[in-house]
Amino acid sequence: MADHPSERYQRGMQVIRKILPDTGVASTEENLMDMINDIAPDVGQMVVEFVMGDILSRPALDLVTREKITVGVLTAIGAELELETHIGIALEVGNSRQEVIEVIIQQMVYAGFPRAVTALKIAREVFRKRDARGVS
Amino acid sequence: MADHPSERYQRGMQVIRKILPDTGVASTEENLMDMINDIAPDVGQMVVEFVMGDILSRPALDLVTREKITVGVLTAIGAELELETHIGIALEVGNSRQEVIEVIIQQMVYAGFPRAVTALKIAREVFRKRDARGVS
Amino acid sequence: MADHPSERYQRGMQVIRKILPDTGVASTEENLMDMINDIAPDVGQMVVEFVMGDILSRPALDLVTREKITVGVLTAIGAELELETHIGIALEVGNSRQEVIEVIIQQMVYAGFPRAVTALKIAREVFRKRDARGVS
Amino acid sequence: MADHPSERYQRGMQVIRKILPDTGVASTEENLMDMINDIAPDVGQMVVEFVMGDILSRPALDLVTREKITVGVLTAIGAELELETHIGIALEVGNSRQEVIEVIIQQMVYAGFPRAVTALKIAREVFRKRDARGVS
Amino acid sequence: MADHPSERYQRGMQVIRKILPDTGVASTEENLMDMINDIAPDVGQMVVEFVMGDILSRPALDLVTREKITVGVLTAIGAELELETHIGIALEVGNSRQEVIEVIIQQMVYAGFPRAVTALKIAREVFRKRDARGVS
Amino acid sequence: MADHPSERYQRGMQVIRKILPDTGVASTEENLMDMINDIAPDVGQMVVEFVMGDILSRPALDLVTREKITVGVLTAIGAELELETHIGIALEVGNSRQEVIEVIIQQMVYAGFPRAVTALKIAREVFRKRDARGVS
Repeated sequence: MADHPSERYQRGMQVIRKILPDTGVASTEENLMDMINDIAPDVGQMVVEFVMGDILSRPALDLVTREKITVGVLTAIGAELELETHIGIALEVGNSRQEVIEVIIQQMVYAGFPRAVTALKIAREVFRKRDARGVS
Repeated sequence: MADHPSERYQRGMQVIRKILPDTGVASTEENLMDMINDIAPDVGQMVVEFVMGDILSRPALDLVTREKITVGVLTAIGAELELETHIGIALEVGNSRQEVIEVIIQQMVYAGFPRAVTALKIAREVFRKRDARGVS
Repeated sequence: MADHPSERYQRGMQVIRKILPDTGVASTEENLMDMINDIAPDVGQMVVEFVMGDILSRPALDLVTREKITVGVLTAIGAELELETHIGIALEVGNSRQEVIEVIIQQMVYAGFPRAVTALKIAREVFRKRDARGVS
Repeated sequence: MADHPSERYQRGMQVIRKILPDTGVASTEENLMDMINDIAPDVGQMVVEFVMGDILSRPALDLVTREKITVGVLTAIGAELELETHIGIALEVGNSRQEVIEVIIQQMVYAGFPRAVTALKIAREVFRKRDARGVS
Repeated sequence: MADHPSERYQRGMQVIRKILPDTGVASTEENLMDMINDIAPDVGQMVVEFVMGDILSRPALDLVTREKITVGVLTAIGAELELETHIGIALEVGNSRQEVIEVIIQQMVYAGFPRAVTALKIAREVFRKRDARGVS
Repeated sequence: MADHPSERYQRGMQVIRKILPDTGVASTEENLMDMINDIAPDVGQMVVEFVMGDILSRPALDLVTREKITVGVLTAIGAELELETHIGIALEVGNSRQEVIEVIIQQMVYAGFPRAVTALKIAREVFRKRDARGVS
């Protein structure tokens, strides 16, 4: 985990700035990063360098498409904590609420109704929090 | 399961014609449908009417994006038989081989390296079969 | 999702009336349907038409047996929200509390102790809510 | 793992004799037990004593119903090796082929189409092997 | 489930006494056992006899190593209720907090970041509860 | 993915040399790396830099313990291709065959018998291949 801030770290932070909402108040997404950095800062660094810097910044897919895939995958494997975060990120990078719902419906064929129903409940909570903050 | 061929069935068959390769020889995708129809024709009808007619024909997402999500989800849940089929379909509807690989890399963050490695092995087999048939 | 109320929708509603408790107060099962209809009414319609109308109304298995299988499957895949709902439905269609517990024990061999322990905790909550409503 | 053959072991062997086909040739089910006993005989003893003697011999559910639940659960979690074995056992204890297919369809709603499609392929192979042996 | 307290039961209780904290107040681990014994005492007995008496007391691996494996497995399959319990047990039998975190990081490669993030959140809660009780 | 061979790459290659058998013939482990490098060399580089260089070379756990956890996790999530590879690696870094079997038994409590049975079958194949090569 040497030579911080590396080129990978800087590239990762560029992605973070695109996907974190600019609200002036701590968002769900920031809270998750804070929790990780509190208990295991090495994992926080890996999220920035590896997840953001190595994977999400690869040019072969844009962030709008990447987040559609991520919402589908997180719904399918039932990863509720990250799903809440990534529904917010999916919207932040440019997906519409209808597209988020549609991704959940598409994966329903492959991972079944219960994972979809749980994801719809989480999506409704994310949408409500964003309504309260006045963002789409 | 009444009133066949229903409007749903016809809409589903329109999707099937888009996603099945037009090769003159039985493809992996056709073989899977034949297997289903042989042992459980009611499930075959549900695939046409519900999966294709109700879900995949919804206008909110195009087939190119839907198949990216599907490849990501099938990789993540380790559904190898359907993954082989859907990597072929993803290419057939317009995704590039590089995009298929990139979807597998994107989901790797969320479902781990082993599912990605298995999917890469399956992708290599699909690419080779398509090379042998002279299609991209 | 055309021609509503279709024959499938009517057949699905017949199932719904059998599996929803007749209590005069909103049950857990009704609340889940309300949540789905609020955020994604198309999914609500699919639950009625496809899940209830196409699958659960098939004559090859009765509802008592179907709900045993469903409780086993939902326990095994860790789908907690739907499991709570289907433990209630399993009782409503005629399974005893002992049979619900026994299904959880049976699947424990195949999906492990932790999924069983989580299901037992959910079953205890469902039983307590039903005790409070004065139903078995 | 002491005092073999214990009461639990004897009770387990009674279940084994009910679920293993009486064919004079080694069946898929016997082959799996032989494999386990070859590499890890302690696990083989646990299968007899714990799985068969403690769980499957409990009176609260009969073996016909237990195997329906088991086929549903094994399909849902994608445990292909044991699924092949338990589709055979489900038939051996009295389920019809149609009921096995119907269990796979029932769980499809909850665990998705791909697990069902894989299970249908395995069921077709089991049915064919039983056809070759002249049993239903 | 005969002849209680059997040799297996006594061997299981020896393990229980090693892994349950000696605090004078009901711990998370005791609360889980109480819940199981309340709704399904037969499962409680199986936990003592089979899990503790048959498996965890086998000499081939010590409890410190067994709990590392268990924390890794429970994180990977997303079994949150049992994970909370076993992070406590892992510490109780001699693992350090750093080792618990490291197990979660190790399995992250294989089961992905979201399962690790959820486990880190649970670990932080367990550590805080133990801080409040004044134990490491 | 810049500046190759980086410090991370070199650290990763040190781990690779410890876990790959020195046989003069291509092993299962080398074959998997070759397959990855053939279809997606970027993933091959991530395996060296991230998995080996960032994670497995962390000092908080030794490789013998890490591979125990990995075999447990891969068994539990049913990742058969990687499990075959890591049973070999677990032995190569110093675990005994008995310890590999014991890890599989330990995780059986938490992820169920079928995953254990599949892992035992794979372990038997790995042991046989190593017998044929004359290594323990």
